[in-house]
Amino acid sequence: MKETLNYIQENKQLYIDELFELLRIASISADPAYKDEVLKCADEVARFLENAGADNVEVCATKGYPIVYGEKLIDPNLPTVLVYGHYDVQPPDPLELWKKPPFEPYIEKTEIHPEGAIFARGSADDKGQFFMHIKALEAMMKTNTLPCNVKCIFEGEEEVGSKSLEAFVNENKEKLSCDVILISDTHIYSNEQPTVTTGLRGLSYVEVEVEGPNRDLHSGLYGGAVPNPIHVLSRMIANLIDDNGHITIEGFYDNVETVSEEERAEMNKLKDDQEHFKKSIGLNGVEGEKGYTTLERTSIRPTLDCNGIWGGYIGEGAKTVIPSKAFAKISMRLVPYQTPEEITEKFTKYFEKLAPANVKVKVTPHHGGMPYVLPSDTKEFRAAKAAMETAFGKEVLPYRSGGSIPITAMFEQVLEAKSVLMGFGLDSDAIHSPNEHYGLYNFYKGIESIPLFFENYAK
Amino acid sequence: MKETLNYIQENKQLYIDELFELLRIASISADPAYKDEVLKCADEVARFLENAGADNVEVCATKGYPIVYGEKLIDPNLPTVLVYGHYDVQPPDPLELWKKPPFEPYIEKTEIHPEGAIFARGSADDKGQFFMHIKALEAMMKTNTLPCNVKCIFEGEEEVGSKSLEAFVNENKEKLSCDVILISDTHIYSNEQPTVTTGLRGLSYVEVEVEGPNRDLHSGLYGGAVPNPIHVLSRMIANLIDDNGHITIEGFYDNVETVSEEERAEMNKLKDDQEHFKKSIGLNGVEGEKGYTTLERTSIRPTLDCNGIWGGYIGEGAKTVIPSKAFAKISMRLVPYQTPEEITEKFTKYFEKLAPANVKVKVTPHHGGMPYVLPSDTKEFRAAKAAMETAFGKEVLPYRSGGSIPITAMFEQVLEAKSVLMGFGLDSDAIHSPNEHYGLYNFYKGIESIPLFFENYAK
Repeated sequence: MKETLNYIQENKQLYIDELFELLRIASISADPAYKDEVLKCADEVARFLENAGADNVEVCATKGYPIVYGEKLIDPNLPTVLVYGHYDVQPPDPLELWKKPPFEPYIEKTEIHPEGAIFARGSADDKGQFFMHIKALEAMMKTNTLPCNVKCIFEGEEEVGSKSLEAFVNENKEKLSCDVILISDTHIYSNEQPTVTTGLRGLSYVEVEVEGPNRDLHSGLYGGAVPNPIHVLSRMIANLIDDNGHITIEGFYDNVETVSEEERAEMNKLKDDQEHFKKSIGLNGVEGEKGYTTLERTSIRPTLDCNGIWGGYIGEGAKTVIPSKAFAKISMRLVPYQTPEEITEKFTKYFEKLAPANVKVKVTPHHGGMPYVLPSDTKEFRAAKAAMETAFGKEVLPYRSGGSIPITAMFEQVLEAKSVLMGFGLDSDAIHSPNEHYGLYNFYKGIESIPLFFENYAK
Repeated sequence: MKETLNYIQENKQLYIDELFELLRIASISADPAYKDEVLKCADEVARFLENAGADNVEVCATKGYPIVYGEKLIDPNLPTVLVYGHYDVQPPDPLELWKKPPFEPYIEKTEIHPEGAIFARGSADDKGQFFMHIKALEAMMKTNTLPCNVKCIFEGEEEVGSKSLEAFVNENKEKLSCDVILISDTHIYSNEQPTVTTGLRGLSYVEVEVEGPNRDLHSGLYGGAVPNPIHVLSRMIANLIDDNGHITIEGFYDNVETVSEEERAEMNKLKDDQEHFKKSIGLNGVEGEKGYTTLERTSIRPTLDCNGIWGGYIGEGAKTVIPSKAFAKISMRLVPYQTPEEITEKFTKYFEKLAPANVKVKVTPHHGGMPYVLPSDTKEFRAAKAAMETAFGKEVLPYRSGGSIPITAMFEQVLEAKSVLMGFGLDSDAIHSPNEHYGLYNFYKGIESIPLFFENYAK
């Protein structure tokens, strides 16, 4: 193992140069205008996999964007690790808030990243993180230390709901058969307190539309006499959460996992630096569901957030219009035992019920995802914990994260294997935001931890 | 007068062709991208004025878009009518709702306009209406029947708050001195019940911004633990109007004119066809301030409307973001004795007070305007009423409209003359909306009414 880590140490600069190549590709899956870039990115990932020494590298066509596959099978009697990642990225808007263009990566030091961080869309989510696996595989191949079989899949639709992945996994069950799935698409609690993610929230995402009059109206001639869809939508959104931070949707909490007082006490041991948290996002105070800590609100409790709203005139200057329609995008994070189907249905029913008499409302579901939990008394968790403890030289704790990776539940069902969420980002990395970045320290600790996980797991 | 009306009759088709030339110019004052079109439109208006026989035609530079001036002074002992109009138009968006491109005028028959209507942005507001004055002047010149002096000003910034007009009027007080101002930028109650507009509401227009976290956040990692500016803004908008349709801003109704029961009874005599009203805008029911009719809500009562709202991700698909900021455009229509300064200040104070602890709010005022009333016992009103009764062959009633033409109050103050609002549109003409149109019947009745007004007023 020492020689693998030495090899990694010697090639550090090269890894950055190569990652920059990937980061320069604007592989935005949500926007059809970037189709060619997404496809180009798939080809580049395949090239890197081949160069790393993987066999049978393929850019597998799907109904959507391709899935890149590669493998190194050394002994059928050894366990097999399936590595998953995604090469697509979130749209970069609002563009004007980026210090430099989102697809022109650069390195800059920050308070949290004194060794420097890579700034670019996708640097942490997920190009910088899945690329660690390609480089770790390469290091194990070059030093002849690969301790088990490895398969890799990198998809191009994670940011739009992994629409083609489930069919692909079902059709390739044999090819993808494995003992464990390893994913780096999450963050650790902090560089001082590394963690393995043992829980993820699920997701229900809907778009809503409120229609009042059948055309835009002049607000001077009609104002005050007709339902204004912006006001109606505002009232409806306001009514979705009460003064205690509770979501008012009927039956919303019916199936929510009750986390024991012991577990809550355990999880609140994580140094919850509220002052730092508030400062990092420029707030004087935080708020949320009554009776829970910030840590709990963002991990073991379900939430509802409006992710976008629009209607009427939103250009420069003034226009006195009452729009015919107003729209919003609303997402709910789910916890164990809630399902996206259940919650989307409950939301739809409730939202339709909230609508006043003189408007029409429409609810369109987007993608959803199941919540996921990896118990901390499993072999999978222990292999990851030990690997990271060696790499970081610190105790590693289990940690439930607020985000969603809906595919973990699907993997478990189809491939009958647990996913290990060994991500290395920080929650301050601004993923999905302007100036996304990924610490160099985290990038290297990740590349080191991966061969250690393989070694621990293959034991 | 008979020969003037005959002349108009003979030139009907030509008027349409000429108006189409003006309607093809996309003179959108709100969007700097259309600057050249606005300037081109000013030149064309000047050309039409000259061809009509006006003297001293000028395209007068201002700090913003130019004001076109022209005059025909025949005798200092005769009264002088100042005609006002505007050649700029509203932005045409949402473009996809137009049946044909907004700057390619065409004629089509509709249920309300069995003789046909001109469809184009600006057809009713205000190119089709100010052009009637140029053609009426031309007819009086050609038939040598001009009964008094006339001055014309046509501005290019009405849709963005007439920013340069007040300075221009102040600097040219002598040049613009007049006995009455005649404006066609309003609508009649219906073709069956023509009206002269005797009241207009004022306007206070603001843009608001709510800032939560100092950057966009991932809703999985932060959702439920920080104030989401979209939710906060929605709650604040919801709180601006109570369940009885009353605006909750402190002191909002302090100065509102109390309209007598007699006047309310008189105004409600106008055939208020609720079924037609609802059908024309596709609603099953209407709503508004409790205790008032639709007619009252849109004329003698002040109102508040959100004209635009935006924040977060508003593109295709799903993005799980909590935006740093959310925005809205909000306008209030004012009635006599309210002033835009007073109401903008009260709004700002109240909105800042409504803001919860952990967000910052910003209120930016756009243009405002004073309400206006023309008593029905004046010479000005009577001249207009008689002119329209001759042209339409029907009784003409006074009518208070809900819209705003802020400059009427300014004219009264600087030029010490009353404005007569003799507009000919219908409220179903979709001004400020897709498929704006102006009835041919209304266009011709307007051109006929104007010389009759001149004659009545000069008597």
